[in-house]
Amino acid sequence: MTLQQVLEEVQKGTISVQDAEQLLRENSYEEMGYAKLDTSRKERTGFAEVIYCSNKADEHLLKIFDRLYREDGEVLGTRASEKQYELVKASFPQVKYDPVSRILKIEAPGKERVGKIAVCTAGTADIPVAEEAAQTAEFFGTAVDRIYDVGVSGMHRLFSRLDTIQEANCVVAVAGMEGALASVLGGLVSRPVIAVPTSVGYGANFHGLSALLTMVNSCANGIAVVNIDNGYGAGYLATQINRLALGK
Amino acid sequence: MTLQQVLEEVQKGTISVQDAEQLLRENSYEEMGYAKLDTSRKERTGFAEVIYCSNKADEHLLKIFDRLYREDGEVLGTRASEKQYELVKASFPQVKYDPVSRILKIEAPGKERVGKIAVCTAGTADIPVAEEAAQTAEFFGTAVDRIYDVGVSGMHRLFSRLDTIQEANCVVAVAGMEGALASVLGGLVSRPVIAVPTSVGYGANFHGLSALLTMVNSCANGIAVVNIDNGYGAGYLATQINRLALGK
Amino acid sequence: MTLQQVLEEVQKGTISVQDAEQLLRENSYEEMGYAKLDTSRKERTGFAEVIYCSNKADEHLLKIFDRLYREDGEVLGTRASEKQYELVKASFPQVKYDPVSRILKIEAPGKERVGKIAVCTAGTADIPVAEEAAQTAEFFGTAVDRIYDVGVSGMHRLFSRLDTIQEANCVVAVAGMEGALASVLGGLVSRPVIAVPTSVGYGANFHGLSALLTMVNSCANGIAVVNIDNGYGAGYLATQINRLALGK
Amino acid sequence: MTLQQVLEEVQKGTISVQDAEQLLRENSYEEMGYAKLDTSRKERTGFAEVIYCSNKADEHLLKIFDRLYREDGEVLGTRASEKQYELVKASFPQVKYDPVSRILKIEAPGKERVGKIAVCTAGTADIPVAEEAAQTAEFFGTAVDRIYDVGVSGMHRLFSRLDTIQEANCVVAVAGMEGALASVLGGLVSRPVIAVPTSVGYGANFHGLSALLTMVNSCANGIAVVNIDNGYGAGYLATQINRLALGK
Amino acid sequence: MTLQQVLEEVQKGTISVQDAEQLLRENSYEEMGYAKLDTSRKERTGFAEVIYCSNKADEHLLKIFDRLYREDGEVLGTRASEKQYELVKASFPQVKYDPVSRILKIEAPGKERVGKIAVCTAGTADIPVAEEAAQTAEFFGTAVDRIYDVGVSGMHRLFSRLDTIQEANCVVAVAGMEGALASVLGGLVSRPVIAVPTSVGYGANFHGLSALLTMVNSCANGIAVVNIDNGYGAGYLATQINRLALGK
Amino acid sequence: MTLQQVLEEVQKGTISVQDAEQLLRENSYEEMGYAKLDTSRKERTGFAEVIYCSNKADEHLLKIFDRLYREDGEVLGTRASEKQYELVKASFPQVKYDPVSRILKIEAPGKERVGKIAVCTAGTADIPVAEEAAQTAEFFGTAVDRIYDVGVSGMHRLFSRLDTIQEANCVVAVAGMEGALASVLGGLVSRPVIAVPTSVGYGANFHGLSALLTMVNSCANGIAVVNIDNGYGAGYLATQINRLALGK
Amino acid sequence: MTLQQVLEEVQKGTISVQDAEQLLRENSYEEMGYAKLDTSRKERTGFAEVIYCSNKADEHLLKIFDRLYREDGEVLGTRASEKQYELVKASFPQVKYDPVSRILKIEAPGKERVGKIAVCTAGTADIPVAEEAAQTAEFFGTAVDRIYDVGVSGMHRLFSRLDTIQEANCVVAVAGMEGALASVLGGLVSRPVIAVPTSVGYGANFHGLSALLTMVNSCANGIAVVNIDNGYGAGYLATQINRLALGK
Amino acid sequence: MTLQQVLEEVQKGTISVQDAEQLLRENSYEEMGYAKLDTSRKERTGFAEVIYCSNKADEHLLKIFDRLYREDGEVLGTRASEKQYELVKASFPQVKYDPVSRILKIEAPGKERVGKIAVCTAGTADIPVAEEAAQTAEFFGTAVDRIYDVGVSGMHRLFSRLDTIQEANCVVAVAGMEGALASVLGGLVSRPVIAVPTSVGYGANFHGLSALLTMVNSCANGIAVVNIDNGYGAGYLATQINRLALGK
Repeated sequence: MTLQQVLEEVQKGTISVQDAEQLLRENSYEEMGYAKLDTSRKERTGFAEVIYCSNKADEHLLKIFDRLYREDGEVLGTRASEKQYELVKASFPQVKYDPVSRILKIEAPGKERVGKIAVCTAGTADIPVAEEAAQTAEFFGTAVDRIYDVGVSGMHRLFSRLDTIQEANCVVAVAGMEGALASVLGGLVSRPVIAVPTSVGYGANFHGLSALLTMVNSCANGIAVVNIDNGYGAGYLATQINRLALGK
Repeated sequence: MTLQQVLEEVQKGTISVQDAEQLLRENSYEEMGYAKLDTSRKERTGFAEVIYCSNKADEHLLKIFDRLYREDGEVLGTRASEKQYELVKASFPQVKYDPVSRILKIEAPGKERVGKIAVCTAGTADIPVAEEAAQTAEFFGTAVDRIYDVGVSGMHRLFSRLDTIQEANCVVAVAGMEGALASVLGGLVSRPVIAVPTSVGYGANFHGLSALLTMVNSCANGIAVVNIDNGYGAGYLATQINRLALGK
Repeated sequence: MTLQQVLEEVQKGTISVQDAEQLLRENSYEEMGYAKLDTSRKERTGFAEVIYCSNKADEHLLKIFDRLYREDGEVLGTRASEKQYELVKASFPQVKYDPVSRILKIEAPGKERVGKIAVCTAGTADIPVAEEAAQTAEFFGTAVDRIYDVGVSGMHRLFSRLDTIQEANCVVAVAGMEGALASVLGGLVSRPVIAVPTSVGYGANFHGLSALLTMVNSCANGIAVVNIDNGYGAGYLATQINRLALGK
Repeated sequence: MTLQQVLEEVQKGTISVQDAEQLLRENSYEEMGYAKLDTSRKERTGFAEVIYCSNKADEHLLKIFDRLYREDGEVLGTRASEKQYELVKASFPQVKYDPVSRILKIEAPGKERVGKIAVCTAGTADIPVAEEAAQTAEFFGTAVDRIYDVGVSGMHRLFSRLDTIQEANCVVAVAGMEGALASVLGGLVSRPVIAVPTSVGYGANFHGLSALLTMVNSCANGIAVVNIDNGYGAGYLATQINRLALGK
Repeated sequence: MTLQQVLEEVQKGTISVQDAEQLLRENSYEEMGYAKLDTSRKERTGFAEVIYCSNKADEHLLKIFDRLYREDGEVLGTRASEKQYELVKASFPQVKYDPVSRILKIEAPGKERVGKIAVCTAGTADIPVAEEAAQTAEFFGTAVDRIYDVGVSGMHRLFSRLDTIQEANCVVAVAGMEGALASVLGGLVSRPVIAVPTSVGYGANFHGLSALLTMVNSCANGIAVVNIDNGYGAGYLATQINRLALGK
Repeated sequence: MTLQQVLEEVQKGTISVQDAEQLLRENSYEEMGYAKLDTSRKERTGFAEVIYCSNKADEHLLKIFDRLYREDGEVLGTRASEKQYELVKASFPQVKYDPVSRILKIEAPGKERVGKIAVCTAGTADIPVAEEAAQTAEFFGTAVDRIYDVGVSGMHRLFSRLDTIQEANCVVAVAGMEGALASVLGGLVSRPVIAVPTSVGYGANFHGLSALLTMVNSCANGIAVVNIDNGYGAGYLATQINRLALGK
Repeated sequence: MTLQQVLEEVQKGTISVQDAEQLLRENSYEEMGYAKLDTSRKERTGFAEVIYCSNKADEHLLKIFDRLYREDGEVLGTRASEKQYELVKASFPQVKYDPVSRILKIEAPGKERVGKIAVCTAGTADIPVAEEAAQTAEFFGTAVDRIYDVGVSGMHRLFSRLDTIQEANCVVAVAGMEGALASVLGGLVSRPVIAVPTSVGYGANFHGLSALLTMVNSCANGIAVVNIDNGYGAGYLATQINRLALGK
Repeated sequence: MTLQQVLEEVQKGTISVQDAEQLLRENSYEEMGYAKLDTSRKERTGFAEVIYCSNKADEHLLKIFDRLYREDGEVLGTRASEKQYELVKASFPQVKYDPVSRILKIEAPGKERVGKIAVCTAGTADIPVAEEAAQTAEFFGTAVDRIYDVGVSGMHRLFSRLDTIQEANCVVAVAGMEGALASVLGGLVSRPVIAVPTSVGYGANFHGLSALLTMVNSCANGIAVVNIDNGYGAGYLATQINRLALGK
């Protein structure tokens, strides 16, 4: 019930003041003891709740998975291990697992993917993060073009795919080491660029800090940055932008 | 001319190989000796070139201002000082200066502002950065709602304006100190949130690093971050998103 | 009006649904255009709003000062400059200014100071921060013992005042350089110690970072840390603890 | 014996100067060769000594456990491993172990828990640190309300429990990632908030540094911070504050 | 084909506009699905593509190795594990592996090594990085003098080899801990010094950051720095300089 | 005298043991009380000593200038102020000063500039550092091509000048903000690239640290980095490489 | 009176218990309101108290100066400004000021300087810190050899003075930029080396952090480090070591 | 041969110029291929070479151990593993290993330990580092008093041992967490304090950085700092100071 609806029920007398107070306070989440599932999230934000699997206890993972599956008929889990895949598969044989992106999911059949985003990587080592972004966006209904291994040390590879990139509603630039790809893309496209620094590299890259600083300081316009290795966040945000472009 | 057009002219023989080579190499910028004005930028990205005034030599500032004004009939300058305002005003009496945002501009008359973005600040000290974002977006044709001083130490102020914020195509969250506003907004809206850390604060905020890290690590979804105090970048990106939402 | 009261009025019909919605959203702050004064703060937290004067525009400072003075009959301003003192004094001749703590205030006459906190410094250079803490606490009704210049390079000075310190309900430990005073106090008293790192020092103290890390890593128990140079925050928190000890 | 008592015995001649000197120097700890047990700590601070189990040699752990058990009839150990639990259990079958908080303890029967503190977490991954805080406080006689998984990405979950939180004498806010929970709580309650940054997160959280900086820079009042993941320190400090509120 | 050649073919009509466009865009790399092999690199830069083996999937490593071997008749792989050596050896029995430098390679027979560079280390622990530099340079045809364990704590060891070092076209200085070797060499030779900080050390060396800062801040002239532990990069750059000295 | 020469004189008896000892110890520098001029440097390294003017006392600057002028008939001073220019000009009217690069010099007439290096900048704000590099190289006899304002936000500007850049013996890449220019150049040329991070930028560039990390972590080969804003060091190193290419 | 003496007086009855308690608590410092002069320091540590003049209020500086002068007949002030010199000179015409080291002092006549320490600098810009060290040591009675401008970019300058350095009881190595001098000295002498990093340099030296890390990570033995620019601390410690060597 | 001796032989004609040159260049170290043993070190510095065992290859460790044993009849190895102990023991059954300090040694029989240093730790977890310091000093002939577990959270433990500490020629202060012990000791003794930060702690101690900064910034005098966990370096330096005090 919305705030307006609750107030109307109070006015009509169908809900007591005490009940209304309770409703306005305890709205829209399900208490599971160890966690509070945010079941109103889809209504509030247009996105169902997602499971960050890393370090979840087996029992908790299963219960939350089950709960969300019953709610929506589909579930997206990120940062899942092979072992967690085996665990969930025992109860949900239809679950799919991709060891590259570490995404574990049951996807509703016949889901349409619309609009267009481009997910680019500088090197091959950035692909796991890029796939997390791409598959997250696809799960939320976005059509994705993948343009991988187009880093600045061999720029002609990027230019040969530029048409595709320029047609996207949003570009996700995934890069580690010095992270220059985001700036280069920012100078070449007219749509928003979401930069994802990765922890790929060695030496003074300090687990992605170098790429993060590069991207935050970009001299190009139309770039914003998410956390290091946060493919999920980039896929989510790209979907929001793609939906806007589709008038949704 | 596009690549295809140049090639067609070569095929037709209307352009020599040498001229084509020249064209393909020297396309679309104006050499000014000390600078290369990127005059094809508007066509390429949909945004005219903007002047970052800080530390520009007087003579250079004037020349670039003049050059861009002749090109577009309007100019946007950021980080301008009072002294630079006086300088430009002597040649362009119609120039406007806002000492809060430090924006110096001549805006084409009758420009329409369309769509809707919301620019929010945590405190009053964040307003200069917010105004840079808001006025940049307005210059590029975006309608802006300002919701200032709604930081997390008094959350009821934010909630009273939530309807307005939720209607925007894009939310710009400007905050210094601990920068928690971005996370709070990310949990409350379904549209992209562009987080702008500011250098407002003291002690361990380390000139905005604290707010930057907070925002990059946000537990909420749909948030991306621009550089510390980079109101211009946020206004630019918000405009890109707003345009997408308008089908432009 | 509390939530319960509003709901009762709706039930009675004395308030319409629209008005109730408005009330529940727009409660308890005063819109001043550039700022939203949090006038319900005293009721919510037991502390009136305080003015952080640093970098406030003259006109804004005066208006906020005036507004708070009319509300409470007293005002506390922190980080005020001499110039701001002159400005406020022109309108409020009774205003007091302390150049050491940079506190600017009008205090209600006959205010009682109760309980007891101890404010300690390691050196004389830490006194400005300590005075901000002490005078903040006094403004909020707390009795304060000052024990200054008792740093660890001459520990006998501290021991001679230990009785006084051990009687306090809360100890504020203000120290720059290596900040060891907080750990030493934590090992000697049974009451909470609020540690305030200061930016006093040179070389590798990095504007207080060294003292902050020292205090956060303290091997002693019962210590918590506020921001570098944040005397106000320490005085506020010490007052909260002192009030609890007094059953308030 | 206090200093005064020793001096009186010297005056009376019942203690020689040599013995007095010895007494004033060697007071109140037990030399165990590898460690000096601080057996006067309970008297001095109101809290018995606690064992930080991590990396303790088996033999040392057992001896110190035994020594403290004989002293007080109860023992609190933190950061204990399963293996250490097995080790201690062989000698003390009544010992209890909680694998979540990693607390290993023998608690005196019939201990009363009084007053009230609230321990809140932003997410479920913060629970181990929160339980260390809660169980430490309980061991020292404090009644604890647990409010878990109320982070800022779904604020309504927090608001539904606000009454409980506002009744506590002290609030412990446990959060990783961007750590915004502490600021939000600081704006909503009138009692001290102890902020505990956790190392939960990834990317640019740098093992808790991000949350630590967020909390130290909080724009809300009445907040102080302990070390990253330091649940024990927060539980200890909350107990000190709770005791003050109870007039103890 | 160069740009000029393509344009001439267009003019002659032997290549259609569409084909020319395609050629100008898709020049010179081989799409392998997961990677884009930069097969034009040798022509562009004078160096064949090299495989960074670390974390490459077995299948990808083998395919790329095979591809490059067919292209050039030799392959250089860096940061290879023993396990990767076994893998590649099964298909390419002639492959060589050096466990110190972790270089895996097939080298064309009868390759001449010309010119002269000197690779120096401060200690024995820096040798793995130095060998990566030396063997990279040798693979690219450079003659290398190795001068190891000549750090500043026993400077006479360095002086006894100074003649050799001064004769080199380029000096590679490999050092961890405080990295002073680069500055000392910079003051003694007239040729470029490439400084390679290593992660060798403990405590406050922070995985090579200390040596990196030392080398970047060197008071000596003619020094430039590559990434921490980046022996490959130093060997590559030294080869470029050596080739210049040989008029290549 | 070389070591060999001194020893021969001793053998011949023309120099006593004591004098030889003195000579071998006190060789080749001139004691000026406050400084030891390294007058053998030119012989040892091929470069005369240069004056770092910043913060030099007037009297010292003049004396060192005079001493070096008498030695070589020319002097190069870096980081000189306008005031220092006036000072030196009073004694040496022929001195030249460039306020952009802050270089103060007397250059021997008729000096030839040979070979070729390219000095590139990302933006116009990087020009002062680039000019320090270019003019240093020119002073040491190197011919320089300047290619300014070719940063990655408008890459076509760079491509139009690529031929010139690819012909240089060494490329100096000067860039602030995110410093991506160095990586882009590294992927396009076959000669060494010396990367100079500049402190140009704002927010999270942290006075050049961002660009430094970007450049050190470059994914392209053949790049080495000098200190932030160290144009002099880059010009010096480029000259060393240029000389090698000329067989000097 | 020592502890033993006080106790004996109590036993004899010549001091009451109350007085003894007072004595044991309030020993040996003089309360000045804003500061507690540590007048027992000379007895406790062998060094009189010294004034850190930086930022001292005029009135406080004068009073402390006067107080210490009356106590010892001589005073040492560090980090004094010209203005503070003028202030003190008005009352103490015999005061001496050195603008290089910024030391302000009255030294007792006929003081003997004994033993031997060597104070070395890498460059001329490090001399102010070196002079603070040297003059501090001299004030405390140590004979000092100054060996300046012997940094590693021209090592022969250092070797020519090595005999002098090797004869010292303690060597103070003062260096900014990359701070390699300390390591070089550590490898050449058998006596303790006190390393003083200075903030001299630019770019990535980060106000002395680079030199500090270099020195802390030194591969040579017998080196310990004081704070950045802390010449006073080095002179003090060198004096302690020199005294030990003299059997004092 | 000293420089003077070589020159005299040249004068006499007993050594040719070529041989003298060779001697002056190749003096005093033994080339082992992978390492250059610094066999003149004992003569130069008064300390034999020591083996840093960590990560040494088995074969190298054994050869160096053997070489040093033949030279001196005793060997000191630091940071040795249990496995390395087993390895060395097979060849040298008389070798001793201490698993706490990880020191592996053969000590010459009947070595006298003279003078006095005090090694103090803040907690029991700092003992491994302290033992490395103490046993290093003992190996080099220094008598050591160990005073462990006297950190600032229970200061009375320290005071009861103060007499012993004050009698030492040098105090080594070993502390992790916040490292305040060094400052406290610096204020209580008149002899040099060598501070050793340890990596003991958790959260924001950042592997010892917190303790390092604390110690470097100490407000007490007579303190210098070695690297994090560098017990060996502290024991070495303390021995140098102790020898000076004994007139050696």
